Amino acid sequence: MDFRSDNVSSVSPEILNDLVTANQGTSTSYAEDDLTRAVTRKLQDVFEHPVRFFPVLTGTASNALALSILTPPYGGIFCSDEAHIYYDECAAPEFFTGGAKLIGLPSLNGRISAAGAEKAIAKGISSGIHHAKPSTVSITQATELGTVYSPDEVRAIASIAQQFGMHLHMDGARFANAVASLNVSPADLTWRAGVDVLCLGATKNGALSAEGVVIFNKDIGDDLGYRVKRSGHLASKSRFISSQWLAYLTDNLWLKNATWANAMAQRLSAGVAALPMAKIVFPTEANEVFVSVGDEILEGLKRRGVRFSEWPADEGTVLRFVTSFNTPQADVDACVAAFVATGCVPV
Amino acid sequence: MDFRSDNVSSVSPEILNDLVTANQGTSTSYAEDDLTRAVTRKLQDVFEHPVRFFPVLTGTASNALALSILTPPYGGIFCSDEAHIYYDECAAPEFFTGGAKLIGLPSLNGRISAAGAEKAIAKGISSGIHHAKPSTVSITQATELGTVYSPDEVRAIASIAQQFGMHLHMDGARFANAVASLNVSPADLTWRAGVDVLCLGATKNGALSAEGVVIFNKDIGDDLGYRVKRSGHLASKSRFISSQWLAYLTDNLWLKNATWANAMAQRLSAGVAALPMAKIVFPTEANEVFVSVGDEILEGLKRRGVRFSEWPADEGTVLRFVTSFNTPQADVDACVAAFVATGCVPV
Amino acid sequence: MDFRSDNVSSVSPEILNDLVTANQGTSTSYAEDDLTRAVTRKLQDVFEHPVRFFPVLTGTASNALALSILTPPYGGIFCSDEAHIYYDECAAPEFFTGGAKLIGLPSLNGRISAAGAEKAIAKGISSGIHHAKPSTVSITQATELGTVYSPDEVRAIASIAQQFGMHLHMDGARFANAVASLNVSPADLTWRAGVDVLCLGATKNGALSAEGVVIFNKDIGDDLGYRVKRSGHLASKSRFISSQWLAYLTDNLWLKNATWANAMAQRLSAGVAALPMAKIVFPTEANEVFVSVGDEILEGLKRRGVRFSEWPADEGTVLRFVTSFNTPQADVDACVAAFVATGCVPV
Amino acid sequence: MDFRSDNVSSVSPEILNDLVTANQGTSTSYAEDDLTRAVTRKLQDVFEHPVRFFPVLTGTASNALALSILTPPYGGIFCSDEAHIYYDECAAPEFFTGGAKLIGLPSLNGRISAAGAEKAIAKGISSGIHHAKPSTVSITQATELGTVYSPDEVRAIASIAQQFGMHLHMDGARFANAVASLNVSPADLTWRAGVDVLCLGATKNGALSAEGVVIFNKDIGDDLGYRVKRSGHLASKSRFISSQWLAYLTDNLWLKNATWANAMAQRLSAGVAALPMAKIVFPTEANEVFVSVGDEILEGLKRRGVRFSEWPADEGTVLRFVTSFNTPQADVDACVAAFVATGCVPV
Repeated sequence: MDFRSDNVSSVSPEILNDLVTANQGTSTSYAEDDLTRAVTRKLQDVFEHPVRFFPVLTGTASNALALSILTPPYGGIFCSDEAHIYYDECAAPEFFTGGAKLIGLPSLNGRISAAGAEKAIAKGISSGIHHAKPSTVSITQATELGTVYSPDEVRAIASIAQQFGMHLHMDGARFANAVASLNVSPADLTWRAGVDVLCLGATKNGALSAEGVVIFNKDIGDDLGYRVKRSGHLASKSRFISSQWLAYLTDNLWLKNATWANAMAQRLSAGVAALPMAKIVFPTEANEVFVSVGDEILEGLKRRGVRFSEWPADEGTVLRFVTSFNTPQADVDACVAAFVATGCVPV
Repeated sequence: MDFRSDNVSSVSPEILNDLVTANQGTSTSYAEDDLTRAVTRKLQDVFEHPVRFFPVLTGTASNALALSILTPPYGGIFCSDEAHIYYDECAAPEFFTGGAKLIGLPSLNGRISAAGAEKAIAKGISSGIHHAKPSTVSITQATELGTVYSPDEVRAIASIAQQFGMHLHMDGARFANAVASLNVSPADLTWRAGVDVLCLGATKNGALSAEGVVIFNKDIGDDLGYRVKRSGHLASKSRFISSQWLAYLTDNLWLKNATWANAMAQRLSAGVAALPMAKIVFPTEANEVFVSVGDEILEGLKRRGVRFSEWPADEGTVLRFVTSFNTPQADVDACVAAFVATGCVPV
Repeated sequence: MDFRSDNVSSVSPEILNDLVTANQGTSTSYAEDDLTRAVTRKLQDVFEHPVRFFPVLTGTASNALALSILTPPYGGIFCSDEAHIYYDECAAPEFFTGGAKLIGLPSLNGRISAAGAEKAIAKGISSGIHHAKPSTVSITQATELGTVYSPDEVRAIASIAQQFGMHLHMDGARFANAVASLNVSPADLTWRAGVDVLCLGATKNGALSAEGVVIFNKDIGDDLGYRVKRSGHLASKSRFISSQWLAYLTDNLWLKNATWANAMAQRLSAGVAALPMAKIVFPTEANEVFVSVGDEILEGLKRRGVRFSEWPADEGTVLRFVTSFNTPQADVDACVAAFVATGCVPV
Repeated sequence: MDFRSDNVSSVSPEILNDLVTANQGTSTSYAEDDLTRAVTRKLQDVFEHPVRFFPVLTGTASNALALSILTPPYGGIFCSDEAHIYYDECAAPEFFTGGAKLIGLPSLNGRISAAGAEKAIAKGISSGIHHAKPSTVSITQATELGTVYSPDEVRAIASIAQQFGMHLHMDGARFANAVASLNVSPADLTWRAGVDVLCLGATKNGALSAEGVVIFNKDIGDDLGYRVKRSGHLASKSRFISSQWLAYLTDNLWLKNATWANAMAQRLSAGVAALPMAKIVFPTEANEVFVSVGDEILEGLKRRGVRFSEWPADEGTVLRFVTSFNTPQADVDACVAAFVATGCVPV
């Protein structure tokens, strides 16, 4: 029962099979191969829009590279103070942008509001050159707290960004989970709602190592190729990255995987929500479940072999459970049973 | 009646005289002249401690350079979210450090607390390499809100920094005002309290353009000379910077100037505090006075020729008045009179 | 007949098999898994020395990260002006170091000399803080021109670096080819000869995507983990990188692969050297063959389906042929035959 | 007799007088004062062209800031390998651009050629994203070796830059000396010849600390104000920088000063050229004289109190003598006499 993260999971059989199949003959290196070109075409189908696509190897790289084409070195990036780019990437955005400033906004259930962004941006602009130039707004979809933005919420935030001449970045490490959860088209969640650049992840949802920057706004990112290269994210044997993407986007594997992961999170959340001594902290809208518990339950779960992430809260501890494309339903049920066994007798 | 900032002021006559006197014959350039060496000796007397001194031309440079020797590119700097380095230097610290992350802490009257710093640092450390490595704590003395830290408060914060293997930086753009206000020795406020590096300013207190990095901790800053040079802050005709420092430190000019500025701020604060319709927002402990007023008073003061800085508050507007080494007492009295005339009849 | 580069090749079957085998169950992410730990132990056996190992995904990243722990932002890196880090990594070293300066030295057959390095370093030092601080010497083994440094040559260069308090970096993208060519122990070519940090590549020699920084000098690189993370080179599903390394280092696969590639280069070089109208430009000591040809041969080879890299020379064109772990001997023979067929009748 | 550099000199009386005069009342800080606006108007008269002007404090800052608006972080800057920006600014351009690469070109008498630039740029472009993107050409006027580019030479280089979609930067630390030497209009030497951005220096030619970026190309530099601020080069008491500029540009002081310095260099050069045992190394076209001498003369000059810069050459030593706006003619004559006295009997 390993719910520590979706990146402790293995690789989807479909993806691994295609990777093995790609191991034939020679192939042009550095993303100039046929497979890589095919990925871009697939993405244009998925998003119903012309895109440029830059495959990279990690989500940190994807986000930091995307931010670096949206934000000058003297620019400001406005995001949730719970955002991965704000707190968990060891200042990678600052590094890739050459020193831009991240301004953390308060969030509710992991989501920033258009009004909150507007207020902070207006304050920054009023300081002129004495403050980092407001350049980019970044949101995470699904959020770090397992919730999602509706298309309307995305649009409202995009509208603020546009009003100030800024751009909108979407961290889509778990984009598939958001699409599966909201049951809307990828286009409605991105460029139609005003997203300029999406960082699309596949690794957490069944790939081995496949992330990438999807650019919708044609005025942006002409030179991203140089940035990818100089940051060391241009894979030489690129066919093995692209083959993952192709498998991921074929036969809706990406949505199938995400739908399963979401369903397992719902099952876990529902099971735990029924218990008196544990509290679901944020709405379960994607593949993460946050539960607030006391010490006794915390220790009991560990003793019973349940693995999760934890962090101290003002009261008790908040546990994070992440489900994956191949989380067994039996594991979810066993996990709920472990809760019950540690004293959370259902009402 | 110009209270917009202490940097709208002119230059102390003593300082300008010595600068003119320095304009004789040739002199070795790039801070290898005799005057520059003499400044270091003076500072060692003032601080009763061996120091290394790097003169630079602006406070932004001084702070950003100091932070760059205390903080690796992947490091975290903890400071007040009201700090000049956090909000008003256009991401200069991010630039000079090569991308370090500034973490803004809540402050009370402009001062952060040791307990608040400890909590945020501990959280950062618990994330390991996924979070910027906690490296530096920075405090401003006097603070941006016109208050000061007592030696005990500095010591408590230094102690937290040391406990986590971090360093303590002090932004001393208005250090003279703090010393004059607290009436303690410069040593007690700095290295004896655990400060590793002080950015000492003279420009706001009567110099033309003279700031500098004072290093107390002998293990730090061996290579700062390279950083000063490559950031363009090594003045070629350095004697004209150093002559300002010598005049500033001679016959206690620095403390005389600061004492006057503080006294004028006290006079203004006391005058305004007696009025019913204006509210002193932070304790007046140095040379800045913050007053909360309504629109009528705001406009009335402007009409009467009073100049100040302003920023929107949740209710009304907060006005900042900064006094200087040569603020005429008559201007202060006229300012108070302008308050009265706009309707703030004293009780 | 594809000799464009060793990175157009596919993946060694042994490596791909183990990668597939690693796809079982869950595994701790971010390089804290058991496989990653096992790689370090293997490397310590191979190098007969304690090492720290940081797996990354590309050679550009490996080199740039290694240089960033050896060189401060104001430092100078001395290398061949033919070096990959100097010319072919889109200024990645400048990026990762935060702005260090690369100083290109003239080379003979791709190798710099100790005397040449000494002269350039001494000149840099004589300029003091006005020049980037000489910090690192970097050599490539095997070189970009298909030659190798003997242990004595490495030692001589290391000795110059030490004399000036600098460090020695080795770009080992084709380290296996050098070891196979020289038939010396990996230890003799690295730490015993004074190398502080080796960037070890496996991708060009049969891996899918596996590069890494091997640190011999225990005083260096404590914080490299932070740098790997913030540059986006910490793979989440790290077991799939480490499984490649394990297969690569097992049963001497790395040396077997390199030995074959070298032999094919020798065969090609010998075949071409016997022809009157083509000239071997550099000694063939690893897996690259450089041939100077006129236009007629250039076009004839292309027509016959031979693929290679080319660049303009003062006279004619220089062609680069790179052999790989799985270059068929028949391809080499066919390539020589194509030379002959275009008019290079053997004497 | 101090010929070490033009920055060992004092300040022009006219400039110091105006600086003292500026010390009246309060003035808006941070370059928003009236004097600063007046400087831009003066420059537009001098250059007969609309310009934007950003005053800064050092030449290193001026050059590095200018290069940062012309060159992306992944860009390449082509310049003489004798250029100050290449060798003597401690990698400041690499720092300010966020890691751009400087490519040193061979020069003749300090001047690069259009043909040499073209060849190097074409090679860089042929490597695509694997090489830093050719972005900027930089020339120094007058050069570091005391020579000047004619307007035609500037135009030829500008034409190459334009052909490749690049920009042309001119380091004008000694621009006044070049204008005085060539007797052409400032416009003919800059924008009319294709210069996009000029770094104009006054410090070496009589100012205290006054350098600046002059932008001719209206498409460039909108956001330079942010870069100036975040690099710490926005002086708070800016009136004291601008007053120097105003005095410098009034009544042709800048050309008068440069004309005198040039004349003294000519006098020294002519005097030394007549001697048999010393050799003028580069044509004396501005205010620097380079003389190759043997050890005996070197020591003799020192003994007689002559000060200069020196650096080792393949044979003997090259001495650099720099004259200034206030170099006494008697010093020049005494210097020539010292040469004679050490054994250089005129023929």
